[in-house]
Amino acid sequence: MRYPPSLLNLIRELGKLPGVGPKSAQRLAFYLQKQTSNDIQALADAILDAKDSLQQCKTCFNISEKDQCAVCEDSLRKQNIICVVAEAADLLAIERSGEYSGLYHVLHGNLSPMNGIGPDQLTIKALLTRLDNIDEVILATSTTVEGEATAMYIAKLLSEIEINVSRIAYGLPVGGDLEYADEVTLGRAISNRRAV
Amino acid sequence: MRYPPSLLNLIRELGKLPGVGPKSAQRLAFYLQKQTSNDIQALADAILDAKDSLQQCKTCFNISEKDQCAVCEDSLRKQNIICVVAEAADLLAIERSGEYSGLYHVLHGNLSPMNGIGPDQLTIKALLTRLDNIDEVILATSTTVEGEATAMYIAKLLSEIEINVSRIAYGLPVGGDLEYADEVTLGRAISNRRAV
Repeated sequence: MRYPPSLLNLIRELGKLPGVGPKSAQRLAFYLQKQTSNDIQALADAILDAKDSLQQCKTCFNISEKDQCAVCEDSLRKQNIICVVAEAADLLAIERSGEYSGLYHVLHGNLSPMNGIGPDQLTIKALLTRLDNIDEVILATSTTVEGEATAMYIAKLLSEIEINVSRIAYGLPVGGDLEYADEVTLGRAISNRRAV
Repeated sequence: MRYPPSLLNLIRELGKLPGVGPKSAQRLAFYLQKQTSNDIQALADAILDAKDSLQQCKTCFNISEKDQCAVCEDSLRKQNIICVVAEAADLLAIERSGEYSGLYHVLHGNLSPMNGIGPDQLTIKALLTRLDNIDEVILATSTTVEGEATAMYIAKLLSEIEINVSRIAYGLPVGGDLEYADEVTLGRAISNRRAV
């Protein structure tokens, strides 16, 4: 017996999602099949609505329902510090930490020459136009090879201007067991130690 | 900064899917956000189309785009043997094996009194009306506790009729390493050994 075409199509579409392999896609398809029409409609609407109503902030390229995102609109935030992140999801993660109250700049990716992503594919040029009255730029890209390369590239560009540039700290994750930390992380945690 | 409402709604809807936790839901939402409108529309359409066009086969309760599924419509298949499975996905898995050419009956679940699923919640009554001219019923529910209980329950019902009832074989999975098999599986594999 062949799969019904509409089922096959659904499995193929679900299989395009990140982290969803052929087996998960089939499992999701059968699950959706068993839900009520209302639930299915709610999911489809949520997918389409989010695409329709969300855009990039014209200033910092954060995800937003308006031209200016909620961070850029908020005049109570510190206006003299910009935290540079690779993705809007990273911005939201930093917001959840509650430790930062300045502005952001979302690059929408990291430098990755192998995948054809150079400085022009990111929002680096727009960052350079925002630096009037800015005292510090925090480079909060990931501590992966690509995140590091992106941070170093931007740090070099900014070194020509009189502006403080910092990098988020390396170290043990909170609650992390020293015994299970990898050597590189542990080495960085020791060399970046702080006076108590 | 708060999440935009439409993004929050999408994350909530995606989080209802099986195997998708809050972090995966957020990751999927941001992924979808980055796709083209066409891709998004294709996914939403696939979800709605599958729900609209798929129904249960009136005879065997397999997933189908018509009243009769492709298996029940195919007169070349053996008409005197029924393989009982818990879900339509199991039927498709058996079809992929290519080892079976009879009819099916999809129960749409296993007995699970703890979750309020008794014989009346499954398609067991409909199975009993299909047994004229049937020589054998293969019970192909999973080898889990609930799958076993379901198979035993149906076997007991069928023991009153003159019909051959069989259970799919227990044993080592093909390619499975004997050393890593659990004791119960290994015990069954030995007691169900076959002459070569």
